Amino acid sequence: MILVHTPNPKEVAAYLDLFRAEMPEQTFASLEYGDCAEAQYLIAWGLPDGLLGRLPKLRALFALGAGVDKLLSRPDLPASLPIYRLLDGGMASQMTEYIRYGVLGYQRNMDIYRRQQAAGQWRMLAPRLPEDIRVGILGLGEIGSAVAKALAKDGYRVSGWSRGPKHIHHVHSLHGEAGLEKLLENSDVLACVLPSTPQTRGLLNGERLSLMPAGAMLINAGRGDLLDQDALLALLNNGHIRCAQLDVFAEEPLPHGHPLWSHPSVAVTPHIAAITLRRQAVEQIAANLRKLAAGQAADGRVERGNGY
Amino acid sequence: MILVHTPNPKEVAAYLDLFRAEMPEQTFASLEYGDCAEAQYLIAWGLPDGLLGRLPKLRALFALGAGVDKLLSRPDLPASLPIYRLLDGGMASQMTEYIRYGVLGYQRNMDIYRRQQAAGQWRMLAPRLPEDIRVGILGLGEIGSAVAKALAKDGYRVSGWSRGPKHIHHVHSLHGEAGLEKLLENSDVLACVLPSTPQTRGLLNGERLSLMPAGAMLINAGRGDLLDQDALLALLNNGHIRCAQLDVFAEEPLPHGHPLWSHPSVAVTPHIAAITLRRQAVEQIAANLRKLAAGQAADGRVERGNGY
Repeated sequence: MILVHTPNPKEVAAYLDLFRAEMPEQTFASLEYGDCAEAQYLIAWGLPDGLLGRLPKLRALFALGAGVDKLLSRPDLPASLPIYRLLDGGMASQMTEYIRYGVLGYQRNMDIYRRQQAAGQWRMLAPRLPEDIRVGILGLGEIGSAVAKALAKDGYRVSGWSRGPKHIHHVHSLHGEAGLEKLLENSDVLACVLPSTPQTRGLLNGERLSLMPAGAMLINAGRGDLLDQDALLALLNNGHIRCAQLDVFAEEPLPHGHPLWSHPSVAVTPHIAAITLRRQAVEQIAANLRKLAAGQAADGRVERGNGY
Repeated sequence: MILVHTPNPKEVAAYLDLFRAEMPEQTFASLEYGDCAEAQYLIAWGLPDGLLGRLPKLRALFALGAGVDKLLSRPDLPASLPIYRLLDGGMASQMTEYIRYGVLGYQRNMDIYRRQQAAGQWRMLAPRLPEDIRVGILGLGEIGSAVAKALAKDGYRVSGWSRGPKHIHHVHSLHGEAGLEKLLENSDVLACVLPSTPQTRGLLNGERLSLMPAGAMLINAGRGDLLDQDALLALLNNGHIRCAQLDVFAEEPLPHGHPLWSHPSVAVTPHIAAITLRRQAVEQIAANLRKLAAGQAADGRVERGNGY
């Protein structure tokens, strides 16, 4: 018995259809109709409180997403339960699109033209080429590496930063605190795709953001708690940071009346940079279930200590 | 003696430096210091009225741009003077960026998220993948073909339309009036890079724009006189066309108070989609001057009858 849950019943029904078609030999059920006492696997996003304590036979949990910070912070999460997160599942290409849109807009001055348009101003700005723009990617996991490679292919000068050293073709890879400072100082556009972990929370504070070159852009598509939003607003208001494209926030939905909603240099999107695509998620989890059934290691096992 | 002219004296100085460094064996001069009676070649953009009648030894004119519609309509243009226009010169990649920005924004609903942000609304929309979006390119010359190929590589379903039949890998190529109607009916995003010629002027009238699917987007980066701006406004206002990204206008600069400036679904840019990049232009024209000196045919010769 494999339980499937998300907070949206229509989505659960869609997932059940896809899983049953993909693995007719297995029994899939929603929480409503499934037997918790018999559940061996749970495929889920946004679990009801206390549920995990009521699944005595649970052997593994498959998260229907790549970021598992909320899941790992649950008090009812059994300490030894294996957790698998989605690797890519269509998310790397979506994230590439989201960040490419921001970088391309910055390079081509579309944010400035938008403000000129609001003022009825017709004024050509000096053109900038991709090779004029230094892009820094915070986070070089599966998604960050894909973004970095794609932007390097677009012609941008791309650097990346991660916890440990990495080697990616055409991407200048940095790590550690000194590497972080160097990245910030040399990023015309800083794009963050880091997960939320005890090590990354609060990483983008005012001091670090001030290291960015004057007139830079920030894109945050990682997690909201990585960024000091008040510090960002101060740097936008004093003009040090030219513009920001934000998909994630300290509190989501972004509260009514929050100054980020109406800031003329900020684009707010409602956590849509990389959405789990059902078909890809189902294929990936089904492949993992088959691997476990064959006694093999499954992909995307979360290291609790790392937080991802 | 080779004359160099643009309406901006600083730009003329920059061009003279580049041409002299590229071809030290030749004599380059501005209109101010050059000898019109001796000029054999003219490299120019935005000529003073009547100038062309005062250059008795002129053997060819090199336009510092790709679109020569204004030049061809001058009454002082000698009928037999060979004219060469820039082919690409960095313009194809700029045009690709400009159109990719529009298509990517449409695919990822960035225009809708911008309007939601203005209303303080946090609402996720269903994701769309590149393969869900049909892009139609009007104009498959050097620039249009490059745009079409790049967008096909991005994963979009790309069709293109041109005067005569073309064959481009991964691009569905159409031509003729029936082909135009078919393209319009099947373009979620229509991107126009056509030149202004007697055949293309007024091409995008209300009747043809109405053929586009409901909720489509229009990008015009060709010439302003291809498009009936009032018809576009009517279709934006009744919701048939979702949004537009316009770089060229019937009158440029777009007049103060024109409704396109303030329309919430329109992005106005001041004719910057593809700007002549000096270094590339100089290299291309220098190569052509060498070809002519060697008695060879130069590239980019304008066919007066076609208008490009």
